[in-house]
Amino acid sequence: MVGRFQPIHNGHIQAIKQILSETMELVVVVGSAQLSHTLENPLTAGERVYMLHEAISSEGLDLSRTFIITIPDIQFNSVWPAHVRSYAPPFDVVYTSNPLVTTLFEEVGVKVRHPTMYDREECSGTNIRRLMLAGDSRWTKLVPASVAAVLEELQVTQRLRSISKSYEHSNFQPRN
Amino acid sequence: MVGRFQPIHNGHIQAIKQILSETMELVVVVGSAQLSHTLENPLTAGERVYMLHEAISSEGLDLSRTFIITIPDIQFNSVWPAHVRSYAPPFDVVYTSNPLVTTLFEEVGVKVRHPTMYDREECSGTNIRRLMLAGDSRWTKLVPASVAAVLEELQVTQRLRSISKSYEHSNFQPRN
Amino acid sequence: MVGRFQPIHNGHIQAIKQILSETMELVVVVGSAQLSHTLENPLTAGERVYMLHEAISSEGLDLSRTFIITIPDIQFNSVWPAHVRSYAPPFDVVYTSNPLVTTLFEEVGVKVRHPTMYDREECSGTNIRRLMLAGDSRWTKLVPASVAAVLEELQVTQRLRSISKSYEHSNFQPRN
Amino acid sequence: MVGRFQPIHNGHIQAIKQILSETMELVVVVGSAQLSHTLENPLTAGERVYMLHEAISSEGLDLSRTFIITIPDIQFNSVWPAHVRSYAPPFDVVYTSNPLVTTLFEEVGVKVRHPTMYDREECSGTNIRRLMLAGDSRWTKLVPASVAAVLEELQVTQRLRSISKSYEHSNFQPRN
Amino acid sequence: MVGRFQPIHNGHIQAIKQILSETMELVVVVGSAQLSHTLENPLTAGERVYMLHEAISSEGLDLSRTFIITIPDIQFNSVWPAHVRSYAPPFDVVYTSNPLVTTLFEEVGVKVRHPTMYDREECSGTNIRRLMLAGDSRWTKLVPASVAAVLEELQVTQRLRSISKSYEHSNFQPRN
Amino acid sequence: MVGRFQPIHNGHIQAIKQILSETMELVVVVGSAQLSHTLENPLTAGERVYMLHEAISSEGLDLSRTFIITIPDIQFNSVWPAHVRSYAPPFDVVYTSNPLVTTLFEEVGVKVRHPTMYDREECSGTNIRRLMLAGDSRWTKLVPASVAAVLEELQVTQRLRSISKSYEHSNFQPRN
Repeated sequence: MVGRFQPIHNGHIQAIKQILSETMELVVVVGSAQLSHTLENPLTAGERVYMLHEAISSEGLDLSRTFIITIPDIQFNSVWPAHVRSYAPPFDVVYTSNPLVTTLFEEVGVKVRHPTMYDREECSGTNIRRLMLAGDSRWTKLVPASVAAVLEELQVTQRLRSISKSYEHSNFQPRN
Repeated sequence: MVGRFQPIHNGHIQAIKQILSETMELVVVVGSAQLSHTLENPLTAGERVYMLHEAISSEGLDLSRTFIITIPDIQFNSVWPAHVRSYAPPFDVVYTSNPLVTTLFEEVGVKVRHPTMYDREECSGTNIRRLMLAGDSRWTKLVPASVAAVLEELQVTQRLRSISKSYEHSNFQPRN
Repeated sequence: MVGRFQPIHNGHIQAIKQILSETMELVVVVGSAQLSHTLENPLTAGERVYMLHEAISSEGLDLSRTFIITIPDIQFNSVWPAHVRSYAPPFDVVYTSNPLVTTLFEEVGVKVRHPTMYDREECSGTNIRRLMLAGDSRWTKLVPASVAAVLEELQVTQRLRSISKSYEHSNFQPRN
Repeated sequence: MVGRFQPIHNGHIQAIKQILSETMELVVVVGSAQLSHTLENPLTAGERVYMLHEAISSEGLDLSRTFIITIPDIQFNSVWPAHVRSYAPPFDVVYTSNPLVTTLFEEVGVKVRHPTMYDREECSGTNIRRLMLAGDSRWTKLVPASVAAVLEELQVTQRLRSISKSYEHSNFQPRN
Repeated sequence: MVGRFQPIHNGHIQAIKQILSETMELVVVVGSAQLSHTLENPLTAGERVYMLHEAISSEGLDLSRTFIITIPDIQFNSVWPAHVRSYAPPFDVVYTSNPLVTTLFEEVGVKVRHPTMYDREECSGTNIRRLMLAGDSRWTKLVPASVAAVLEELQVTQRLRSISKSYEHSNFQPRN
Repeated sequence: MVGRFQPIHNGHIQAIKQILSETMELVVVVGSAQLSHTLENPLTAGERVYMLHEAISSEGLDLSRTFIITIPDIQFNSVWPAHVRSYAPPFDVVYTSNPLVTTLFEEVGVKVRHPTMYDREECSGTNIRRLMLAGDSRWTKLVPASVAAVLEELQVTQRLRSISKSYEHSNFQPRN
């Protein structure tokens, strides 16, 4: 299962539960590992691993059947499936609802399944980050309680605000 | 001669013919080699080399006087002409209608010529990809028949559609 | 002090003077060193070093207390402060008005100060590049005379025009 | 705790047990993640994660208190601790017996502890890979039984032999 | 067919002839494209493409059935076959006598064949470069006449000598 | 003038004096900027800039005519002169005694001069680092007093010792 997990939310948890019911072992692939401290990607790879671990553990899911892997982006779309293959434990099936990820893996002969859909409009990283930035606490209903706790411990709302102010700013930014 | 060739079209063929009539040998430089599976850059470097080779061969042009070279992007605009120099057989003149390419090569003392213009509005990669995505078969008139055959063999229309759907999608994408 | 310096202007000079009055030594960090020949970043790293050196020297500021450092971008925001640390002479305080730079350095325990503000609306790289492109000579009032002389010597207005024309152009560009 | 784990052996297991007895949570950092299919680094990052997971699980150690992280090498030694920081969940202490790792982390103010020593001469990745290549089954005594099973499943002995033959070979090698 | 071609020699030509007799089309992959101006890799990627083109053409082989592709090294051995796949026109079989290349492609399900062996001791890039450096003209017997002419035109013997002197030199070298 | 400056020594100072007597301005290029914390390259780029600045200043040389530039290595020897060009202020002549640097710049049409030779056997970075590691204080005679002071302030002898111990160590090293 592939995602950026900025942050992990209830839709992801539902998909993880479904996959663990259908397979022996689950590899959660945290993509764009190099990105952090942007409006789209506030959390570091390590913070996302920590949050995922806490979520899986607090939801009573089986850590012994779950792997969490981080993968930095590469320049080559066509090489990306091989990149995932080299960072992940051996796997047979990719779960994704993304058509491009589907195409890339199918072009190299990997089987792809689509997890059952949840309400993407509301329960999405984009919406959660928007609510956090607006100071609207309804985002806490869209993620497990353990994740809300981690995001508060890491002061992610404050981080999003300082990033947001930087984007209005004409000066240098370390990464746009 | 420098281009991305996503895909090669009749305007490129016309320029290739002109250059082969004016010079001994032609180096076709396929830029942005690392990009593929995006709306702007659907084809891999290898697919573009294959398509160019088929086009040059089927148009009866002289393969013994033509080199096809692929070059991945680099971070440094100012270093780019040296990068082309290291990947390409020795060359004396650059053919381009792009003002920045002109500036970069002239700044390091390389002679630049401008190929005769064709109708850029209609015969452009952008327009061809737009027509393919819209299911409008008029794109097949803008490329050589051999290129239309390669693009159908590689199922590029289907690939463009799956990429297009991914762009509407809120989930992870391996490369935007 | 961190910036892209495309180009250095009177606001930067004012900040440099302030910092040199408050500290023993100043490290001027030229960020995005790899970028040049774009509308946002017309000058190479080396051209910016040359321009900064001329400006500091002609303003009668103390070169023996000033270091000029160039730093290419890296993929990792969270690693960026360590990257600056490895390229710069030892430093104790970062001067920046950018909230993200502030956050990144404070997260790793580095003290941050904010230079006194100048009129950012008018005196900004963006405005100066816009005026140069428009052929409006008022930009020469926003930079030291020595900088205006360097920019004319390097023919930056002409370079901006050729880049600008390339952006309207449907063909290949070495870097977007 | 930092290592390459090519492969994990009884010395590593002893150190993991010690650290888990002294701390709340353990982050196992798999370095040189990009290296595989060399005599020094036969296993991919994903294979190493799989092997570590199996070892920790079969030794009855607590997966809910253990994180496994993979980190590709970077060019900059001085930036390496920040790189580890960005990929790993938050940590307070580094366990290492390597003097350079000690120096790098201490220079940026991170506390370092040294795990109790085991017999490095015999129980080392170098010795295990040497025995595997020589067809000497004594290597199976130096690793947990679960690790020996994984290495046989992955056919690592055969892979080492084909790499070894390539090194004697005058022809091209994808990576030395 | 994969190689570094530093330079192309009679053994390569024999293998090319064999492959063209067994297959419809041949892709010649020039590896380590980024390397040049070292004792092991004197020629740039572009110079190697030029030399290969001249050799294939002067040997009367069929350029319309032959592709010449350059590929820079990547950090990941395990990702290398996907990298070749993205740069090369579609292919079904890999010809190599290298055991690691064999293993890497077979692990991802690509068929590998071994070209008939020639005398590797004498006819090898290593031996040819050694003879050139020693001023021993017998190297000209190990390559096609067209290749000897290209190497003289490019003054490769002189380049090898200046590289060799640099290696004895205690000072800075741009790349070892 | 190009070097790694690990560390700067009396031979470098002599060459700097010679060049400043022959030219208007001097650009000191600090190569391999990314390397530090190795036996061959103990100092970071920033530490080398600091040391060079102190040396030039304390020797009474003219900082207003001197630029100090740091350049990370790139993969491509043949592109390296263009890389130097993009990081350095405009220059007309390269001073080097290295035959490969000479060849690379001459191949792209840049004039090269050779500084007068000093005793390379004794006065070399290699010898100085060897003496430091051996605890032999004679190294302090081979560098300006200001440089000896900087190296002691930065505790470089201790750093070399911890690196040296790591090299004897069978465990993981962040970078060899």
